[in-house]
Amino acid sequence: MLLRDPVHGLISFEADEESIIPRLLEAPEVQRLRRIRQLGLTSLAFPGAEHTRFSHALGAAHVMQLFIARLRKIHDELPFWQRLTSERARDALAAALLHDVGHGPLSHLFEDAVAHATGSCRLHEEWTEHVLLDESTTVHRILAADDPELPQRVAGLVRGEHELPYLARAVSGTFDVDRCDYLLRDAHATGVGYGDFDLPWLLRSLRFGESSDGAPPGLAIDGPKGMNAIESFILARHFMFQQVYFHKATRAAEWMIRAILRRAMHLIQDGTRLPGVPRAMLAFAAGDTPSLGDYLALDDQALLETLSQWRDAADPILADLCNRLRARVLFKTEELYGVAQTPAARESAYATVRAISEEAGLAPDYYTGLDIATDTPYEEDRSLTVIFGSGPPRRPTEVSFLLDRLRDETLSRVRVVFPGELRQRVRDALRQAR
Amino acid sequence: MLLRDPVHGLISFEADEESIIPRLLEAPEVQRLRRIRQLGLTSLAFPGAEHTRFSHALGAAHVMQLFIARLRKIHDELPFWQRLTSERARDALAAALLHDVGHGPLSHLFEDAVAHATGSCRLHEEWTEHVLLDESTTVHRILAADDPELPQRVAGLVRGEHELPYLARAVSGTFDVDRCDYLLRDAHATGVGYGDFDLPWLLRSLRFGESSDGAPPGLAIDGPKGMNAIESFILARHFMFQQVYFHKATRAAEWMIRAILRRAMHLIQDGTRLPGVPRAMLAFAAGDTPSLGDYLALDDQALLETLSQWRDAADPILADLCNRLRARVLFKTEELYGVAQTPAARESAYATVRAISEEAGLAPDYYTGLDIATDTPYEEDRSLTVIFGSGPPRRPTEVSFLLDRLRDETLSRVRVVFPGELRQRVRDALRQAR
Amino acid sequence: MLLRDPVHGLISFEADEESIIPRLLEAPEVQRLRRIRQLGLTSLAFPGAEHTRFSHALGAAHVMQLFIARLRKIHDELPFWQRLTSERARDALAAALLHDVGHGPLSHLFEDAVAHATGSCRLHEEWTEHVLLDESTTVHRILAADDPELPQRVAGLVRGEHELPYLARAVSGTFDVDRCDYLLRDAHATGVGYGDFDLPWLLRSLRFGESSDGAPPGLAIDGPKGMNAIESFILARHFMFQQVYFHKATRAAEWMIRAILRRAMHLIQDGTRLPGVPRAMLAFAAGDTPSLGDYLALDDQALLETLSQWRDAADPILADLCNRLRARVLFKTEELYGVAQTPAARESAYATVRAISEEAGLAPDYYTGLDIATDTPYEEDRSLTVIFGSGPPRRPTEVSFLLDRLRDETLSRVRVVFPGELRQRVRDALRQAR
Amino acid sequence: MLLRDPVHGLISFEADEESIIPRLLEAPEVQRLRRIRQLGLTSLAFPGAEHTRFSHALGAAHVMQLFIARLRKIHDELPFWQRLTSERARDALAAALLHDVGHGPLSHLFEDAVAHATGSCRLHEEWTEHVLLDESTTVHRILAADDPELPQRVAGLVRGEHELPYLARAVSGTFDVDRCDYLLRDAHATGVGYGDFDLPWLLRSLRFGESSDGAPPGLAIDGPKGMNAIESFILARHFMFQQVYFHKATRAAEWMIRAILRRAMHLIQDGTRLPGVPRAMLAFAAGDTPSLGDYLALDDQALLETLSQWRDAADPILADLCNRLRARVLFKTEELYGVAQTPAARESAYATVRAISEEAGLAPDYYTGLDIATDTPYEEDRSLTVIFGSGPPRRPTEVSFLLDRLRDETLSRVRVVFPGELRQRVRDALRQAR
Repeated sequence: MLLRDPVHGLISFEADEESIIPRLLEAPEVQRLRRIRQLGLTSLAFPGAEHTRFSHALGAAHVMQLFIARLRKIHDELPFWQRLTSERARDALAAALLHDVGHGPLSHLFEDAVAHATGSCRLHEEWTEHVLLDESTTVHRILAADDPELPQRVAGLVRGEHELPYLARAVSGTFDVDRCDYLLRDAHATGVGYGDFDLPWLLRSLRFGESSDGAPPGLAIDGPKGMNAIESFILARHFMFQQVYFHKATRAAEWMIRAILRRAMHLIQDGTRLPGVPRAMLAFAAGDTPSLGDYLALDDQALLETLSQWRDAADPILADLCNRLRARVLFKTEELYGVAQTPAARESAYATVRAISEEAGLAPDYYTGLDIATDTPYEEDRSLTVIFGSGPPRRPTEVSFLLDRLRDETLSRVRVVFPGELRQRVRDALRQAR
Repeated sequence: MLLRDPVHGLISFEADEESIIPRLLEAPEVQRLRRIRQLGLTSLAFPGAEHTRFSHALGAAHVMQLFIARLRKIHDELPFWQRLTSERARDALAAALLHDVGHGPLSHLFEDAVAHATGSCRLHEEWTEHVLLDESTTVHRILAADDPELPQRVAGLVRGEHELPYLARAVSGTFDVDRCDYLLRDAHATGVGYGDFDLPWLLRSLRFGESSDGAPPGLAIDGPKGMNAIESFILARHFMFQQVYFHKATRAAEWMIRAILRRAMHLIQDGTRLPGVPRAMLAFAAGDTPSLGDYLALDDQALLETLSQWRDAADPILADLCNRLRARVLFKTEELYGVAQTPAARESAYATVRAISEEAGLAPDYYTGLDIATDTPYEEDRSLTVIFGSGPPRRPTEVSFLLDRLRDETLSRVRVVFPGELRQRVRDALRQAR
Repeated sequence: MLLRDPVHGLISFEADEESIIPRLLEAPEVQRLRRIRQLGLTSLAFPGAEHTRFSHALGAAHVMQLFIARLRKIHDELPFWQRLTSERARDALAAALLHDVGHGPLSHLFEDAVAHATGSCRLHEEWTEHVLLDESTTVHRILAADDPELPQRVAGLVRGEHELPYLARAVSGTFDVDRCDYLLRDAHATGVGYGDFDLPWLLRSLRFGESSDGAPPGLAIDGPKGMNAIESFILARHFMFQQVYFHKATRAAEWMIRAILRRAMHLIQDGTRLPGVPRAMLAFAAGDTPSLGDYLALDDQALLETLSQWRDAADPILADLCNRLRARVLFKTEELYGVAQTPAARESAYATVRAISEEAGLAPDYYTGLDIATDTPYEEDRSLTVIFGSGPPRRPTEVSFLLDRLRDETLSRVRVVFPGELRQRVRDALRQAR
Repeated sequence: MLLRDPVHGLISFEADEESIIPRLLEAPEVQRLRRIRQLGLTSLAFPGAEHTRFSHALGAAHVMQLFIARLRKIHDELPFWQRLTSERARDALAAALLHDVGHGPLSHLFEDAVAHATGSCRLHEEWTEHVLLDESTTVHRILAADDPELPQRVAGLVRGEHELPYLARAVSGTFDVDRCDYLLRDAHATGVGYGDFDLPWLLRSLRFGESSDGAPPGLAIDGPKGMNAIESFILARHFMFQQVYFHKATRAAEWMIRAILRRAMHLIQDGTRLPGVPRAMLAFAAGDTPSLGDYLALDDQALLETLSQWRDAADPILADLCNRLRARVLFKTEELYGVAQTPAARESAYATVRAISEEAGLAPDYYTGLDIATDTPYEEDRSLTVIFGSGPPRRPTEVSFLLDRLRDETLSRVRVVFPGELRQRVRDALRQAR
């Protein structure tokens, strides 16, 4: 199997141990990822951001190939039972491809919204596990045909668990194949260069960490070579959050989707009939967990078509919100800086916006929001060590000036969200309040 | 207005004459292009090819900005009434943005299929003109608000007609802004580098051609500088056809869509009720032209959701084809090379495939095809001249060794199309026939 | 004038106000920059780093064009006498091209070494001013032919002085055209991607700062747009220092050159005759300042050929060092981390290395070194402000989490330098000392 | 060994079989390549083109690594004695690194000029073989230390001879590692994008050709995959010739160097003493072959410094030409197009230019030239076949429309060369002659 990928160039899965990839690609659960965009509604702010979770899954599997190649250059220093056999490589490749196979539509929005509306919802991680383990799925059958234990092992890897910690961390860790691919891919698709980092150098600087009592080691970074590669990875991720993931138009659109889904859930729960409601949503509204099949029938295409139909709903709020979203008449935001960010000040600003909305006849629950986006650029990762020459393993923050300064700092961006027609009133009111 | 574009980097429309662009972007007819992929089903072969006609329209408008900037560096040599005024620049920008605004879903497939099934169909060019001129559209209102003649002038430019031939050719010609953007964009999204060419150098090598009797001139290429830029543009386009647009998986998927739409049309015409049929399709099936609103309601998302519903149709052919497409169980192809390409040999090969399909119980009209893809890499363009220094204008083929060799050559790729389960039988039969 | 540049693509200087550039390029003082590499001996560590100060000078002039274009998009808000006239643009372009015209050979090495050996030396900044103002140079004549005050104004700009502060800062400031070009160019040539930053976005986010009492304003950054662009610029520079400018092999080679020049100076001062000594070096050794012509006759090519001849010098130290450098038998380094970095520990480590060298019969003054490389990634720049919307100007560190953490931090890398044959002994001794 | 390369990114030579590379890099004959630019004087036309034969040699060795990796993915289909053992891989890597180790200064100019002036000169290929086989060289000692037969085997490979034809062709053939690297590297350094081609895809499309009588096979291209990759490689090379290698300023500078060397040779042969003449040149002038050591002492740096000294030569022609070259006052050219290109017309044009030069008191033998640059973009290569599926091997021209049109076509660019001060007179005279 030979593919063109806009991020990694030529991708091929041709070795024996890689044959699991082309087989899994034929599963409808994997093909479904073609209908889920990697960045949800971000293309409303960055028109190029139409890339799908399918291409990301392929990219993650490709990064895993590179990762495996690097580990094999160094694994001879381990006792043979701790080395990367073909079986383990196959498992890791499958896990890389499938790490998000249970993802819901519109990035994380759907599960957030449903959770909000119903008080309970499986996370996409649980749905992923469900897809892997449920005997009815094609993915499960393909995995189990290779080895009956394979579905469980892949599920473990996706959770970051494996008898070889160095492998587990490659699927789920600070520098896992997921992040490595999505940063590059999101940067490529949005045109925001900040997501670029030096993947070949990062991989090349991997070595094994210390192992105690003969247990297999975790991963470590070769200090002189890899320190800057790590730092630039962390910063690339930070910049992508600031520029793309927290972009005001994206956040506003996401807020609108959440309001729409919330409204629809309430209407359904109140017994209102809405056109084109996917079966999974009916189940959620009823407090049930939908069947796996119904859940997987949800994708961006289906959900957006449903929203398109709701433009004609009898409920004026639902119809209005769906109309605005479709025509990209997005809500506006005002960011609260400095002192305006304290909890009390936030709430006060939000109350002001609600009052203005109320006054304008727009239900504040659906037309206004307080949007808080937070990210911790570098959370101290105790499983990651840096080694200089034959020296002892150290924590990244001990040796990196930059990571030390960033450690465990949480950045938040707080915004009030409201319809564009209220913009002047909101601005004036917020200015007065200062 | 300031945007990130993955192809051109930072794009901004901030000058007075460019204000038409942000205003037009708010029109629902333009926003609709977000729901139509630039390359239809090509993402089934190249997973990155999810880019939309919306991003292409923006890119074409940006290339027009570059084009305008170049023309203004040289237009002082023209009499003032032939220069690029702000009004003319605005017209050209609008035309670049709107050149495909009437495009149907799934690239050219929909109009091909409908034309095939019904014997008549407006081309997307006509729909584009309709969107521009129909007083009911937001696009029309925005244009007419600037100048009542503007819709007509933009329509003219899109057809390649304007009082300034050099401007008309920039919207619709051998090196128009459409091609300049789509080659770069398709290359970026698919990861097929062949589409890259040297846009800045091509623009820089533009000069005015000769004008007779004081009429405004057309465009010309400055020979020593621009000859290689032209050649590489022509070759970039040629390679993109060979690698991407004529890729066997893309062609097979497109063939399947055509079969599905044809089948659905016949069923509708026979009075069968199908679920979720868009109103425009009902009109087409009835031999009518749909209303503009119904036509514009068609987009990739809507059409693919309809196809998704047809998986449960009572008609086994329709349901089967839709199921295959959704699960990406694409038809296979065998390419006919050399002597097998003569008309008689083609027909004979196709007859063979039909017979095999018939034998297998698969209706050959819907399960087999003879797919002929043709392209002429360089059609002699009489409006384009090349000028060396103060010498006379010459045709590109007179001065380019490469273009001379390529002139008016038509390349065709002929394939038979059939379901994968017939592959071995088809191959054996074709081999025997040789 | 139209040029291909590997960093910026097509570069052209075709407008009237730009005609100064092609004229200046013909001056032998500018052509001389072709014989001085931008990064001195760095190509011994990064084989691609052969790019010259000539290509950098062109690049800086090109960035100035972009800078001017941006300023003109916004300068209408200033009173007309503070705007960027063609004359001022010409001055700024000339200053960008000529900012390093007096640079000595081998990056900063030559002036360091001479200063070290003789206790006095004009800095390259002074030589640049000399080239601009001395009536004997072609550069001076070209500038003065345009305007007798031009040499002085260009010299002022190079020092960062101009009646328009916003223009002065573009030639010499935190984000000046020098840094903008060299980061991108060094990244391109070395293959170290970290030097990349978002130049178009940085330029686009420029606005005018506040002006008091009607004085012309300085530059400011538009906060929401530009903050990340600034941060990534600062970090790009930081990473280039860590990866390239402070690379151990580069530093070792530079240390060797300094030792060679020091040795040669002492020999000359002692009356030893050395072959091929450039006249400027004789003058320096005699404590004189060489003539401008003799100074400019020094370039990488001339100096390296001199060093090549010294391989046969009678002095064994000079001959040996020159032989090693020519054959790239570079000295080795050991970096001192953590506590080993305190002044006392450094000196002690260095004393250890000197003793080992002495013991091995290698004169420690020429065969060992204590190399301290320091950089301050972000020095608070009081002339730079960030403005959010209509808010007040703020300092970058007030609004950037990252810059606040980095402010005025100085990073140093301390290494002992010694010949490779001593490596094991040095390592053992340093390990014992810990 | 780990390196940053601006073209290929991270390059490492770390496997056992690759250890020959770091060892060879320490040889002074290899380090000498740092002082020879890949493109001679081309940087006078493309300021970025300062890259050296050293970086190209590393790049060629890296492409060989990729090549070896590809061959190993497919060599299992060969009998074991025809496979790529570690020894053979080592040989091929050494040959790739050393393929140009005997190159003279200033690209091919030096050997052309010397041959012209003296009627005989070893080609650089012979000097390369000399470096490999002469027991006095470090390169020879390193190779022979591995295996006494190794110098001979490497020399054979550089000539394109090896018991495995598929390996010989990788070192010296239509798509050899030399061309693969130099196209990409020259494109990167000059900023002329045309040299880019799809190296990964080209490598991936390699397969083994047919072998007759059990002899080891040559290389073949997998048709459906590789045809466009080949075509674009051939065209990339063609465009680089047209844009870079045949650029008028480069050709003029090269012509000047040849005139300078010719003049110097004659002066030396006449017994004139010139300053700083390298020993090798004295030997050439005396009709002798210089010693290998003297030959290798020649490099760009040494030769250009010699030319710099000749600016003060007593001979006015030599001094004048050297002064012009140093100050980049290059000769001008007029290209002869169309009918002006016939042999008689060429000679007539050249006679005209000589007469003008004579009249102006400039010795036509040194101040004028008839410069004919020729290239054959695609010479039919009988050792290269293309295979479609299980079909028979075919020649590229049988299956490629483009290559068929290009086959064995020779393009020539004919120019007269003369000093700039004669430009107007030359133009007028040539125009009259038409």
